[in-house]
Amino acid sequence: MARGNLSIHLAERPTGEIIPGTTFTAKTSPAPSPSDLKDGQILVEVLYLSLDPTLRAQLNDRRSYVPPVQIGAVMNGASVSRVLATRSKQVSEGDYVYAATGWTEYAILEEGKFEPSSQYPGLRQPQDMLSALGITGVTAWYGMTQIGDPKPGETVVVSGAAGATGSVAGQIAKLKGARVVGIAGSDDKCRWLTEELGFDAAVNYKAADFKQKFKEATPNYIDVYFDNVGGDILDMCLIRAKEFARFVECGVISQYNSADPKGIKAIGQLVTMRIKMQGFIIFDHREHFPRARAEISKWLEEGKLKKNETILQGGLRAAEQGLVDLYRGINTGKLMVEVKNPNETPSKL
Amino acid sequence: MARGNLSIHLAERPTGEIIPGTTFTAKTSPAPSPSDLKDGQILVEVLYLSLDPTLRAQLNDRRSYVPPVQIGAVMNGASVSRVLATRSKQVSEGDYVYAATGWTEYAILEEGKFEPSSQYPGLRQPQDMLSALGITGVTAWYGMTQIGDPKPGETVVVSGAAGATGSVAGQIAKLKGARVVGIAGSDDKCRWLTEELGFDAAVNYKAADFKQKFKEATPNYIDVYFDNVGGDILDMCLIRAKEFARFVECGVISQYNSADPKGIKAIGQLVTMRIKMQGFIIFDHREHFPRARAEISKWLEEGKLKKNETILQGGLRAAEQGLVDLYRGINTGKLMVEVKNPNETPSKL
Repeated sequence: MARGNLSIHLAERPTGEIIPGTTFTAKTSPAPSPSDLKDGQILVEVLYLSLDPTLRAQLNDRRSYVPPVQIGAVMNGASVSRVLATRSKQVSEGDYVYAATGWTEYAILEEGKFEPSSQYPGLRQPQDMLSALGITGVTAWYGMTQIGDPKPGETVVVSGAAGATGSVAGQIAKLKGARVVGIAGSDDKCRWLTEELGFDAAVNYKAADFKQKFKEATPNYIDVYFDNVGGDILDMCLIRAKEFARFVECGVISQYNSADPKGIKAIGQLVTMRIKMQGFIIFDHREHFPRARAEISKWLEEGKLKKNETILQGGLRAAEQGLVDLYRGINTGKLMVEVKNPNETPSKL
Repeated sequence: MARGNLSIHLAERPTGEIIPGTTFTAKTSPAPSPSDLKDGQILVEVLYLSLDPTLRAQLNDRRSYVPPVQIGAVMNGASVSRVLATRSKQVSEGDYVYAATGWTEYAILEEGKFEPSSQYPGLRQPQDMLSALGITGVTAWYGMTQIGDPKPGETVVVSGAAGATGSVAGQIAKLKGARVVGIAGSDDKCRWLTEELGFDAAVNYKAADFKQKFKEATPNYIDVYFDNVGGDILDMCLIRAKEFARFVECGVISQYNSADPKGIKAIGQLVTMRIKMQGFIIFDHREHFPRARAEISKWLEEGKLKKNETILQGGLRAAEQGLVDLYRGINTGKLMVEVKNPNETPSKL
């Protein structure tokens, strides 16, 4: 009898927050088998599934850089997987690959649709392909070095600073000689930023005196704002912007769940302070991946960059609640679901 | 007896719209005399006073690129003047100069604080130093060519399109081969844009079916948005932006009079559509003035660029109501006040 392949499908488009048990539905179908493979294809089992803020946006039926997930389709998601069988010369059995498998336990992938671990220099653990060396790390590298471009002594503010992208972005700004201020959602996260990651200051946006504390932490105003959240904090940073500030628009996590996003009032500051505000999607900049990964890998090795992961247990079924909790700030560093522990014996299909 | 010098002073900071008779107060003091001049100084009489949307922002006591006008001080403003007496070798008696004289009839200016008409190639009338060859023309040139940078066939949208800056910006985009859509506040202005200036389409934002008409006018979405207005129209253009769109933030005329500006909700589009949104102030880019003026002058001469002015009569006292009416869209092209007709005999001081 074939082994079962659990997968999670979109059942209903949420208008606001994802509703566990309603938005998604689980299905079990027979797992694919090595005999299904055509030339150039590989069969993988998912080890770690990445949970990313932008996944919520892909549930909306709107013009965007990725087509929306269709009702009934397997939920979008990237993962690091292990190769169980291969008819591609690019990988061997047992190798790790990064791919957009979706929320499933097993998948067949074709060449061009997966990245072998050989493209991740200095890889020590498979989960690094999702965190510091993964998309979020490379996103932080690109946004901070290619758009924000902080000069020594400049003030850099990072929101979502304890998250997967923000924590790396802030550390890169420190490596460039900037004074770095993080914004995060708990005192514990703020302590982690200053005591472990070396941020110059960190401010808890949930604290009653947040605006005052933020002002005190940015006495020379803001040269670079690396924005992961949008909303009120973006407005506050616009008011606090210095002349010729660069605003790196990486994400708007505060708004993804909202059908009626918060309006940004201080847009006039773009003119007054001659601000450049630039959004980006890392997949437009693949030519930078090798350099970004090489630099990040070197910094990790030298101990100049620290990473963190929040790994949820419970298998693929934990993904739905995990995605809900992502918007509530459950994670420090990269949030992922352990679908299968890499130390366990590979599945026999 | 010395001739009187009328000047208009800030009496009270408005919180919303300028209130005629309350915001400003008129004073008459003795006009300066040639005998007051020190080496390098010139004595001028103002011919045309420029009325610009940003003047309202300078009435607020806020951190900005120009210090706010102080209570009791002469109101800020640029003008084209005639030299009545000179102790500078840079100009002769009877020459025209551009300077920030403020709202006054006569002024003493020192070298470095005025621009001789020799810096305006192809000048035909003194008022051109305020319109097509002036700051608004150069602003349009810089914003459109250096930030918007439209490619042939791209869709360019200009708001405030019948204004001093917008009308030139749109025509420059046409000269670069773009498809140009103007947004203006009356059917007459829209007709002027399409029939006289060669815009491909123009939409009246005061019409009930504006949003639908705008959608129809931008079937391929927006590559470049030259924003003079901010507010709801900016939000609408963000929603309508194409991938890698450039948003040139030149001004936010819809918001200057508001103590509680309209929030922009579609900021998430910056990420989704990878938009670059950049504000600028032309005075940071003086090194571009000679090239901008040379190109504009050539286009004017060849009939490829058309300019327009709305010139208010009634002398300096007309400036206050003129500034109020500027935000109501009284003007087509550059709005200015004729303080003294250049064909009249120069004053004898």
